[in-house]
Formats: sequence, structure tokens, C-alpha cells
Amino acid sequence: MPKTPVIIDCDPGHDDAMALLLALASPELEVVAVTTVAGNQTLDKVTANAIRVLDVANATGIPVAAGAARPLVHDTAGLAADVHGETGLDGPDLPPPSREPEPLHAVELMARELRKRPLTLIPVGPLTNIALLIAMHPELVENIEDIVVMGGAIGLGNVTPSAEFNLWCDPEAALRVFESDADVTMIGLDVTHQAMLSAARAEALRETGRAGAVVADLHAFYRRFHLEVYGHDDTPVHDALAVAHVIDPKILKTTPLSVEIDVTQGPCRGRTVVDQLRRTDRPANAHVAVDVDADRFIDLLTSRIGSLA
Amino acid sequence: MPKTPVIIDCDPGHDDAMALLLALASPELEVVAVTTVAGNQTLDKVTANAIRVLDVANATGIPVAAGAARPLVHDTAGLAADVHGETGLDGPDLPPPSREPEPLHAVELMARELRKRPLTLIPVGPLTNIALLIAMHPELVENIEDIVVMGGAIGLGNVTPSAEFNLWCDPEAALRVFESDADVTMIGLDVTHQAMLSAARAEALRETGRAGAVVADLHAFYRRFHLEVYGHDDTPVHDALAVAHVIDPKILKTTPLSVEIDVTQGPCRGRTVVDQLRRTDRPANAHVAVDVDADRFIDLLTSRIGSLA
Amino acid sequence: MPKTPVIIDCDPGHDDAMALLLALASPELEVVAVTTVAGNQTLDKVTANAIRVLDVANATGIPVAAGAARPLVHDTAGLAADVHGETGLDGPDLPPPSREPEPLHAVELMARELRKRPLTLIPVGPLTNIALLIAMHPELVENIEDIVVMGGAIGLGNVTPSAEFNLWCDPEAALRVFESDADVTMIGLDVTHQAMLSAARAEALRETGRAGAVVADLHAFYRRFHLEVYGHDDTPVHDALAVAHVIDPKILKTTPLSVEIDVTQGPCRGRTVVDQLRRTDRPANAHVAVDVDADRFIDLLTSRIGSLA
Amino acid sequence: MPKTPVIIDCDPGHDDAMALLLALASPELEVVAVTTVAGNQTLDKVTANAIRVLDVANATGIPVAAGAARPLVHDTAGLAADVHGETGLDGPDLPPPSREPEPLHAVELMARELRKRPLTLIPVGPLTNIALLIAMHPELVENIEDIVVMGGAIGLGNVTPSAEFNLWCDPEAALRVFESDADVTMIGLDVTHQAMLSAARAEALRETGRAGAVVADLHAFYRRFHLEVYGHDDTPVHDALAVAHVIDPKILKTTPLSVEIDVTQGPCRGRTVVDQLRRTDRPANAHVAVDVDADRFIDLLTSRIGSLA
Repeated sequence: MPKTPVIIDCDPGHDDAMALLLALASPELEVVAVTTVAGNQTLDKVTANAIRVLDVANATGIPVAAGAARPLVHDTAGLAADVHGETGLDGPDLPPPSREPEPLHAVELMARELRKRPLTLIPVGPLTNIALLIAMHPELVENIEDIVVMGGAIGLGNVTPSAEFNLWCDPEAALRVFESDADVTMIGLDVTHQAMLSAARAEALRETGRAGAVVADLHAFYRRFHLEVYGHDDTPVHDALAVAHVIDPKILKTTPLSVEIDVTQGPCRGRTVVDQLRRTDRPANAHVAVDVDADRFIDLLTSRIGSLA
Repeated sequence: MPKTPVIIDCDPGHDDAMALLLALASPELEVVAVTTVAGNQTLDKVTANAIRVLDVANATGIPVAAGAARPLVHDTAGLAADVHGETGLDGPDLPPPSREPEPLHAVELMARELRKRPLTLIPVGPLTNIALLIAMHPELVENIEDIVVMGGAIGLGNVTPSAEFNLWCDPEAALRVFESDADVTMIGLDVTHQAMLSAARAEALRETGRAGAVVADLHAFYRRFHLEVYGHDDTPVHDALAVAHVIDPKILKTTPLSVEIDVTQGPCRGRTVVDQLRRTDRPANAHVAVDVDADRFIDLLTSRIGSLA
Repeated sequence: MPKTPVIIDCDPGHDDAMALLLALASPELEVVAVTTVAGNQTLDKVTANAIRVLDVANATGIPVAAGAARPLVHDTAGLAADVHGETGLDGPDLPPPSREPEPLHAVELMARELRKRPLTLIPVGPLTNIALLIAMHPELVENIEDIVVMGGAIGLGNVTPSAEFNLWCDPEAALRVFESDADVTMIGLDVTHQAMLSAARAEALRETGRAGAVVADLHAFYRRFHLEVYGHDDTPVHDALAVAHVIDPKILKTTPLSVEIDVTQGPCRGRTVVDQLRRTDRPANAHVAVDVDADRFIDLLTSRIGSLA
Repeated sequence: MPKTPVIIDCDPGHDDAMALLLALASPELEVVAVTTVAGNQTLDKVTANAIRVLDVANATGIPVAAGAARPLVHDTAGLAADVHGETGLDGPDLPPPSREPEPLHAVELMARELRKRPLTLIPVGPLTNIALLIAMHPELVENIEDIVVMGGAIGLGNVTPSAEFNLWCDPEAALRVFESDADVTMIGLDVTHQAMLSAARAEALRETGRAGAVVADLHAFYRRFHLEVYGHDDTPVHDALAVAHVIDPKILKTTPLSVEIDVTQGPCRGRTVVDQLRRTDRPANAHVAVDVDADRFIDLLTSRIGSLA
């Protein structure tokens, strides 16, 4: 079976790191490139983190390029140091990155690869890079197989009562992406919060090797935030679920629905308004994940990460 | 046990009618007055409907006054003829109202009664009258025991994906009410949609007398909308749940939470942003219903309406 | 010639005080009542000030009623203590008010008088009371001859670059008034800033009597703000120009134009968007003052105030 | 004296065409490149028009690149066919363009040249390309000498009562540019409407040669719109004034002021809120043109265009 070529656009970030490791461990995917965007931490930190995570899996041949250092329009988004720590990847003791990122912009790296062949984009941070790609290279949209977004929520947000962190960081970019002609799949909190990684499952990875130990350390830090806010130490692994959906489409059930992005400065800024009951006239513009086979996902995640040397 | 004196501010409306009949049938309440506001239908129609419903229960001594004919600021809200029909109370064959409303504004009737003694207000339509009461008579807020609002949603809206009809009709009025010093209880779609009246239970009322037959006819019409949008012919009885909460506080579980009202012109206009996870610094400004004992409610509703002659 | 019956709705305020004195000194007007609204200072202070100004002119028979203590929707407007001082009327040494305001709300006083006969309303503060009047008593709008608003600006604002103070204080109320069926005349900064009272003309009033001396003292304080912001010690007499327009319609040239009120939370909140070039499809909803005969106005103002005993 | 190297980013457009011809005829400038953006007409049309105008001046060696075909976030802006006609350059009978644009994006052409040396950018259309340049290449901002924007208004807009066409087309892009670290000069309607080209002066160019005849034809068409909206057949030459400012800084008087961009969806969308009276705490972020020596400008414009062969 041919591999699905993907570019993962990320801001590692604990769940980003697990997403990257899952992708690298999965024969169904060809990770064509990894690109970065400011979000969970500053661009410099998340770019270094992306390389450090690739280093864990000895994936030294995959190009990494840095993208946008701030949102598209309003420079008001905060970072998520409360969730991911000062480094953006607090917990494991990772060595410094083995290399510099490529000397070109993330958007230009994506464009270069899209000119070669159709690709699936998996953005698991703010959508700034993807919006810039569409703005700069609209002719390449037809070569995007799918944009599998980790972000948004039909129900409750996490950074505000209304909004999920990634889309709240750059709502104008999100609007540009969701209202583009590209196919968009939205994997939001509604499903990521139903597919938790328990402390026990994470700790069990510790014995499987270097990558497993890193994931165990990541989880040990990451769970603190969830314990405080949600009252339990199981954690969602948001970004890894987006990668998992490309590996195994049976994990998630999606429905074509209208998703409107709130770009006001009101209390719902950054909200994904999903019209589940079809109360508006807006046509569907995204495949929205509405249900998840949590066991199937956690089994995939842990077995694959456990398989990395 | 002393009766709880209440004023019901409504826009009948099928569920408003059931709410009124439940209140009139309940010895725990003294219905001091009924006031009306444009919402489900025009002010003239809902005022006539309120009197027609009181007539069904022979409640000819309860004063009825008409209030606001449109929202506080923006005159853009629509009616709900798709839900409640052209009369606002399509279904039963009710005679014309037996009398005219009082020759004073709903707000002045509420103020007059509030000057006499503390009262509980139960607004089950747009909050225009309550906002005007607070704006005109801020000194009477301390005499309001509670404002038990039927409106809003933590989750999905009904008139838009974001907003519940009553609060969407007049978000600026809702903001004024929710940010006032008054105690506010919010009974939203999250609970009303978990406490359905089935066609069987409604039809069973038909044999109990005049009021029961009217409710059966109301339900027979009302369920059509719910069948189309939600795919089942059980219906919520939104407004009656607010009345039931005052009769029997064990029906609903409420939690003090911050509720912010979206008054932008964006896609979340009219949304009640409820901070369940306490992600903002806003203090609680409402008791928000988060769970319902549906059987207890439906038993109360049907037994009381069945008890009306 | 019959007198024009007027109600002046104000928040004194230096220019409000001059407006009241001009009205009281003018045989063309019958001042039916004076009502007050929070704006330049708190409701208590401006109500006391209104009575103190009437006392200067021995106008003890004119009813005064207090209205809204805050804006209609958002309680965010500030006061104008930088312009009018801590009392709202800093400068002259006025005795305490000779009486209490009437024991009814400003809106109810306006409604009572409007039921008797047609009236011209001259609101020279935030439009909260007028919006409440229209909301509570829409049937009385047809008895309003004209609403002569001091407020707004085609060009530059004064409290922000976009907005004039009165309308900025309560934009939602302004929207309700400007989009009502009533005739509205808008007298904004464009004309009030072209009809200045010089220090010399103000000082010349000092010898004419009690009222003149008070106006001279008011101007001596009021000019400080204008010297600082505008660089000269001539001052506009905003509110008096609205009164003057009712006395002598030859002072101002008005044009029927569309005026849209910005009620967003953006940088133009409270702006009066006047469509002078008819670039929108909106019909005219106000008579907007576009030119002023400044000499005619200042002559009227000073001669009339000088004529008060 | 060394020439000032400039890139003109435009959407020809009648006044754009005159701006290009003025630049090409002026020895003070080196026109490094011409880039295009959708605005007055579609990207394809304005790009062809730019080349056709260069052809008039035999400027076949200046690279032309096409940029953004739509605004950054909201795809709602209209074109200005009422002003500039179906071709975007109705009036003169110009031959088809002599060449294709360069095979790279306008933003990449600007970036390539900025990497070589400092440049002045003269955007006279919507600011989409400039915002994308700043978003994609923030490290090049320090190589931008100045961004001389034709756009905005302290006073009245032209496309709406609040907003000037160029900035209204893409307010989010304008916000990004005005809030960047780059030096920005704003040349708005306040000055362009004080520096009119009369029909007589335009017609007098007809005899001077090919370029003069084209400008006379352009003016003959362009004046129709101004006659209809403004009641006279003198026309502003907006974009040429921006070019003239770089040629001769004595033409305009500028002041450092705060300029806030309204990106709400309210009636002031796209407005440049200029804080002339310093009523806000915002520091100056643009040099705003506040006065113009109209004769000096028109003399420069007509003599230079008349000098083209």
C-alpha cells in the first residue's frame, strides 16, 4: 500500500511531540516535512523542540522549517506556558537539537513540496502558516489532499469557555483556512477529550525504549495541568489524534458540517461555530469529528510509540 | 407553608402556555401577575394568548399587562412562527380573550407589585421587560427574590448554533439582566432538552379536563417542529421547567457560574458563555441549571395540569 | 406668538448650565420641565446642579426629575470630571439646591407631559432617558415635535478621535433614538466648535447681574480644558447651541442625512456616521447641523443671559 | 544626487496609472519594480493594466509581478468598477500588454529586492501584499525605508462615510501594516481631495505626447464619477500624490500621529482613526499627511508627464 505523504505543522508542545512520534513510527505515513508555528511557545522554542523530537526517533533526514512567529492580524495571543512549561516541552531531559531548521520559510517549504505532488497537511498548532500558504499560493490549494486540523470545539473550549487554544490563537487565519476551497477536517476537543491517555498506559511505555521513556516523561508533566483544571490525570493527546486519523480513518467518525469562525473581539473570539442541527443556510465546509473509538486510538498510539527503537 | 409570590413574564407560545397552567395549578405559587413581551409572536398576539390561557384555568382575577413590543436596542429579532404558528399558539381551538390587558405597562405593573413586597420574577421570553424594569427602577432590584430565566445554553443553541431563542431575541437586555445586582437563575437548553414530554404523556392529559385537552392539542402542534429539527416527537417544555424550579427546587441542580452574554454582531450573538471550567476571572453571576430530574418534572407537570378542572 | 414648549434633558455641566439659563431667559420657550441623566457627573450631582442653576434664575416652579444613573446596556462610560470638575459645575460658588427633585422618574415626567400636548425634547447629555422613553412609551413618539440632540460629530470627536462625549456615553441609547420614528435634529461638534464664546465676551457678562456673573465664573473654569486640548481659551457652548436652535432656527443650517451609530466595541464606538456624500442606501434619519451663524448665536446667548435679573 | 529606489504596489486604476507615469518620468526615483494587487479591479486586469501603462512609457525593463488576488481574511471587498470602469482603466485606447508578469509572487519579488538594499514601498492599492510581506519576511522590515501608503482619511471616507477605498478593501492587512515596526506614511483623502487636477490641466497634456494624451483620456473618463458624487469635474489624483511625496517632500506636510484601523464589521469598518487631538494614549505609528501644496503637486505632475516622449 502506498504511504500517505504528509506535512505536520506544529508547535511542540507535549501532544505535538507525541503526534510527531506516532507519525514517525507509522509505516502508513511518509512524513515529507515538519513545519513550525508560534503557539504553545515562541517560534524559536517550538522549532528547536520539533528537531529534538525528531532526534529522539533518529529522523534526521526530514526537513524542518520555521514559519510564522505571531498571528496573522492581531498580535494578542498568549502562549501556553501553564500547560507546556517554559521550554514548551517541559518534563523529559532532551538534548539540544542536532541541527538548524532549513533556511526557508515553512510556507515556502510546504509550497515546494506541494508543487511536486498532492499532500495531506496536518496542522496541530495555530493556523497561521496554512492561511499564509493559501494566501501566497492559492494555485496550490488543489494539490492539498486534506487539511486535518487539530483545533476547535463543538462544545466547551479550553483556553476560554468558547474557544480551543489553537484556533483562538489566530482566528483570522482559521477563518481563511475554513473558508478556503481546500478540504478541511476538524478534530476538536469534543473527540480529543473522549480519547484519554491514562498515567498507567503512559508509564507502561517507559520500558519500551527511548521514545517510550520520553513520552512517559512528557505525560508525567502534562498531566499536572489536566489534574488541576479537569480533576483527573488522564490527558487528551489532541494532536496525536489528528495524525491517527490519517493513519486509520476508522478511529474517528466525521460528518460534513458548516463551521463558522468567530473573529469578533467578543467573548466567543476564536470559537468554531458548528451547525450540527443545520439551523443556518451555510453549506458544510468541514468534515467534523463527532465520535471516536478511544481504545482503538490509544492502542495505536501506545503500540506504535512502543515500537520505536 | 406560605406561597411564593411570582410574576411570570412570557410570550405564549406553547411552552409558555404550559408554564402558565402549571403555575396556576400549583398551590406553592401565588401568581401575582402575568406580563407579556414580544418574542414567539407579536406583542398583541402573545398578550391575547396569555389571557386566553388564563381563561382556560378560569384565572380571571390575575392582572395581565403588556410590555415591550420589540427588543431594547436592535430591532432585528425575528418571531418564531415556524415553532409556534401564526397565532403563537396554534393547535387548540381557544376562544378569544375574555378581557383587555391592564392599562399600564408591564414594567410599571411589576414595579407596583415589587414596591409592595419581595417577588420572584420568572421571565420565559426575551428579557426586554426585565432589563427595562432594572433600568427604570434600580432601587427595586433589592426586592427581587430571584430572576428565574428560561433561556440560554451551555451547549448548542436552537435558533442559531450558538444561541437560544429567548436570549438571542434581545441580547442587550440579557446582558443588562445578567450583569445586574439581582440574583439570576439560568435554565437553559442543556436541561430543558433532557426533560421531554412525550406524545403519549401529552395525549394522556386529554381525558383529564379542559386544561389537559388544551395541553394535548398544544403538544400535537408543537411536536411537529421538534420532529423536523431533532428527529423525535418528544418535546422540551422549556418555560414550564422554570416554573417547576420555583415550585420544587429538587428538580434542577444549579451551580453558581460566570455567564457572559455575547452582544456582538458575530456568529455567537446572543450566546450565553458559561464558564464551567473557570477559565476566566469573572465571578459567578448566575445559578446555572446543569442537571435535571426529568421524571420528577414530567410527573409534576402532568399531574398538576391534570388536576385543573 | 405661542411659546414652544420644551423639556431639557441634561447633565450640568458648564455648557448645560448656560443652555438652561438661555432657555429660561428666552420668551420664545416654555420650559415645561428639566430632567437629568448621568453623564458629565453622577446622577445625584447633575440633578443638584440642575436645581442650582434654576435657582440662579429664580425658576422655582419648573419641575425637575432625575432619570437614568447609568447607560442602557454597558456600564462602562466614564464621567467628564476633567472637563467639568468634581462637582460637575466647578467654578462659581453656588448655594445648595433649594429643593429636592420630583418623586418620579425623568421618563415618567416626560411621558406625563407628552400625554398633555406635543413637546420638543432637547437632550444635551447621554441619550439614556430618551431611549427609555421611546422603549417604555412608543405610543407617545407621535407627540414628540422634535428631539434636538446636542451630540455627535461628522468630523473629529472629543472624548475619542471618533466620538463625541454624549453619544459615546451611551451609544446603544443613541442608536435607539436615531433609529426611532421621531424627528431627530443632530447638533454636533462640527457646528459647536465653530461658535465659540471668548473669554472677553464671557467676562463682559459679569457686570450684568447674578446669572451673568455665574456664566463668567463657569467660563473661567471651563476654558482651562479647552486651552489644554485645543490651545485656545475660547470655548464651545455645545448645549446652549441646541437650545438656541429651537429659539431661532436661523442660527443653524441643517440637512436631512443618514446618521448611523457605531455600537461596536471597536475604536469608533459611539461615532455618528453621517453620510454626507450619500455613499450608502440608508435614508435620512436626522436633520444634521452643517453650518452655524456664530455671531448670531453668541449675540443671542450673551444678550439673553445678560437680561436675566 | 542618488535616486531613491522604490517599488510601487498598485491596482491600476486611473490614478494608479498617473502615479506610475509620474514615477517613470522622475529622475529622483529608481522604479525597481511594480507589483499588483486586486482592488480597483481583479488581479488579472490590474496586472495587465500595470504593464500597459509601463508600455506607454516604454519602460519595458522594469519587472512586474502579480500579488494577492483577494483580501487577507474576509473575501467581501467589492471592486471599484463604478469609478474605474470594467477594464479598471476605461478611457484611453491602450494596446494589450507587451509581456507577461514575472513568474513569481509580488511578495517574493519585493523580498528579493529588499534583500539587496533598503527600499521605499509605495502601496497605492489595498495593503494585502504589504501585510503578506511583513508576515512572511519580518526580518526584512528593517530594510524598508518607508511605506508611503495612499489610503485612509482623517475626515470623510469615499467608499463609505467612514472609510477610504484602499484600506476598506482589506482592513486586516492595513492593521498589520500600521501596527508593524516599519515607518509608515499615510497620505489620505484629506490631502488628496485638496490637490485636484482640473479638466483644463488634464486636457492641456493631450498635446505633449503619447503619455500626456493617455492621461487626458484617463481624466476624461475618471472625472465622470467625481462629477456625479462630488459635483465638480476636477479630480483628485490620489496615488500620484504618494509618488510625488517621495519625489519632493515639500509638497506634503506630515505629522506623527496614532492611526488605529477599525477591523470591526460595524459602520466604520476600514476607517483610519487618527488621533489628531491626542485623546488616547496610543503612541504615534504613522506620519500622517495633514496639508498639501496643491499647486506644487499639480505643476510637478503635469510637467513631468508632459516631459515623457
